[in-house]
Amino acid sequence: MPLADEESHLGTARLTGELARTTSQLRLFARAVVEGSYLEATIDHPDATTIPPTPDLRRMLRPLGPVAVFGASNFPFAFSVAGGDTASALATGCPVVVKGHSAHPRLSRRTAEVVAGALAAADAPDGTFGHVEGRAAGIALVQHPEIRAVGFTGSLHGGRALFDLASSRPDPIPFYGELSAVNPVLVTPAAVEARAAELAAGLAASFTLGVGQFCTNPGVVFVPAGSGFAELVAAEVGEATAPDAAAPMLTDGIASAFADGVAALAGHDDVRVVAGRAGNGSNAASAPGTGSPVVLATTAAAVIADPQALFAECFGPSTLVVEYASIEEALTAIRAVGGSLTATVHAEPGEDLADILAVLTEIAGRVLFAGWPTGVAVSWAQQHGGPWPATTTIHTSVGVTAMRRFLRPVAYQQAPDAALPAELREDNPLGIPRRVDGVLVVPGAEARPA
Amino acid sequence: MPLADEESHLGTARLTGELARTTSQLRLFARAVVEGSYLEATIDHPDATTIPPTPDLRRMLRPLGPVAVFGASNFPFAFSVAGGDTASALATGCPVVVKGHSAHPRLSRRTAEVVAGALAAADAPDGTFGHVEGRAAGIALVQHPEIRAVGFTGSLHGGRALFDLASSRPDPIPFYGELSAVNPVLVTPAAVEARAAELAAGLAASFTLGVGQFCTNPGVVFVPAGSGFAELVAAEVGEATAPDAAAPMLTDGIASAFADGVAALAGHDDVRVVAGRAGNGSNAASAPGTGSPVVLATTAAAVIADPQALFAECFGPSTLVVEYASIEEALTAIRAVGGSLTATVHAEPGEDLADILAVLTEIAGRVLFAGWPTGVAVSWAQQHGGPWPATTTIHTSVGVTAMRRFLRPVAYQQAPDAALPAELREDNPLGIPRRVDGVLVVPGAEARPA
Repeated sequence: MPLADEESHLGTARLTGELARTTSQLRLFARAVVEGSYLEATIDHPDATTIPPTPDLRRMLRPLGPVAVFGASNFPFAFSVAGGDTASALATGCPVVVKGHSAHPRLSRRTAEVVAGALAAADAPDGTFGHVEGRAAGIALVQHPEIRAVGFTGSLHGGRALFDLASSRPDPIPFYGELSAVNPVLVTPAAVEARAAELAAGLAASFTLGVGQFCTNPGVVFVPAGSGFAELVAAEVGEATAPDAAAPMLTDGIASAFADGVAALAGHDDVRVVAGRAGNGSNAASAPGTGSPVVLATTAAAVIADPQALFAECFGPSTLVVEYASIEEALTAIRAVGGSLTATVHAEPGEDLADILAVLTEIAGRVLFAGWPTGVAVSWAQQHGGPWPATTTIHTSVGVTAMRRFLRPVAYQQAPDAALPAELREDNPLGIPRRVDGVLVVPGAEARPA
Repeated sequence: MPLADEESHLGTARLTGELARTTSQLRLFARAVVEGSYLEATIDHPDATTIPPTPDLRRMLRPLGPVAVFGASNFPFAFSVAGGDTASALATGCPVVVKGHSAHPRLSRRTAEVVAGALAAADAPDGTFGHVEGRAAGIALVQHPEIRAVGFTGSLHGGRALFDLASSRPDPIPFYGELSAVNPVLVTPAAVEARAAELAAGLAASFTLGVGQFCTNPGVVFVPAGSGFAELVAAEVGEATAPDAAAPMLTDGIASAFADGVAALAGHDDVRVVAGRAGNGSNAASAPGTGSPVVLATTAAAVIADPQALFAECFGPSTLVVEYASIEEALTAIRAVGGSLTATVHAEPGEDLADILAVLTEIAGRVLFAGWPTGVAVSWAQQHGGPWPATTTIHTSVGVTAMRRFLRPVAYQQAPDAALPAELREDNPLGIPRRVDGVLVVPGAEARPA
């Protein structure tokens, strides 16, 4: 833990929580493996009446092969060496080679030792897990003939380059990248009327959490014009914007990219700085490697006119409050945002959300109706992924279904029972849920009311 | 039907069967839609004890968006305008734009009219279905900003070019291509000893079916050295190799590519022509646009030395019999084949198949223990896809799970019940199978023994 804090500056409270999340994530995948649904075991008995006739066919998912995992800078435990990609790949039975992130090399090495030791203790085959370091090793991994898939969490720029490498191999492989998101939030006029102060406090807490270094940071927040919401958020942030309150970020590079990004936004003709320091090409007057909160404001009309400039992800503790003239205008602007990991609506009970939901579900993989998008539960129903550039994939990198990325289907036709994997034998020795002749059968399930 | 036969030369018997398969395929997807499992509806109720805490989270799959489908030359019904890709995309709720294959333009237009009429009669929204023609239109489709995925069945060369286009878009989209397969078959010494004549007859019927124009054609067959199996196959093919017995192929281009491919194989130092005409750069002395069966033979040692040349897919009625000195040598050669749609083993009862299966499941998406790979049943357990270059994907293009390609997950966090899609409302008004707090619940299911 001291090692993790020394390398990441995230503080022991956050890191202790993240470690608990990491181990409970491993346990959740273990439960999913035992439960067995993830295998999609399916049995069709012979049927001579179909065209063409159906022979005995049995299908299940099997491990895809060795997986390369790129550790993330911002989650030294939960998305790094023993993080979600590694856990979901190992859970499917795939060997994993992790490329540790340069932001925490010593923690990565130490974690790799722990993982290797645990696998050896569980009699996993030699070679089930490996750990490499450095940019060249990462590129070599993506191009290695034996690697069958890549899990990546990081920047749009770096992720796109690796995606292109994976796609241009002689045998292209899936590249599961989680790249960039601004996570729009829409506050309806009724909601801001009813509870502006509560919403401002919630937003301030969310976008500054962990010095803003979350992929689910609420980066743009749509509020009614004239609501004064940006000023409320600024008041909530308050003294955190003082130069001596700046907090160390993950790396010097991330801190300077944040300062540059904020300065570029602040330099836009239609953007005003409501709180924080964003002048002169840096999150200025802070110590190097640190960042402090910045609240910016603009209008939906400006966003619609220039979405590329105004919706660049600014990884760090900033948020852009966008004032809209009407919900329709806000939705047009949100469509211009493009793909995101999350989208949030704050409305009052009884409001008709149909038009809003149609847009939010189109652009995001997770839609929130309360709370804030930071804090990603690891569960069966989680979805962490969204349309480009949020992710490169129709799958998730968090939650049980993340395993699907590292599995491929195999069907066995007219196999003798003894030659089949246990999962597909007629008497279901493992007792897993299976689809038999089109009907889902859950062993031991009681009849339940529909 | 006369139109289909005129354009494809496949004969009305085959085409009548293919049409029945096409309509039953549509009905199977309709049943899967009603059953509802394909949505992967998942509900996690709030749980404050997890780290981080789990809010109310509800996840389901939703349509990805407009899909481009490329019709195939060799299945004018089942893999074309109203074929499997179209059916599976429409079943998920995605609009489809088909690029019809130039081998059957009039049938494509007529089928498109039928599909458009059926959708209109069912009150589908305008724009649910479109049909375009020509190479330029196909390229424009793959690059169109609104298209969210591509389904393709065709050549490795053409498919790779389109895959590269899809991957190099500013926003890359999934390209589900089924490209090329040689579908290896392994006959054990015991099987050839027990039933060589039956196996030779089965192979001859399979590789010549439909003038060999199936993606699951058994292109390479491994038999023990000295078994005389190639000669048995040649005898089965018999008079079909006579010049005046040559059958019209789908297009002149396919016929000349077949002739060139066979001639290239026949020209290899280690290959001998056992039956059929394969000299002088053409499947010679046949009328243009026709093809006739060719049986070639080589050794596993030659294959291991030069897999690239000997395992090129030769789309048409040819097969390469490969004589092996040992099962181990055969498996080494099969590994050199690379990815394939299918792999078949013919063995006798009681033989230990573990080593063989380890290799066959590694290289193929469907493993057969009897029969021949042509004839792909459309069912719940079917898998039509395999490691590169068989397909570009970890999904299937045939069978119910083909729908997964055109769906993306969306999670709803802390949504009011009324704002949720019916599939995720607490009382499950549609009565679909769902996972609730980690437990699979099938409404109305009886308890069954494990």
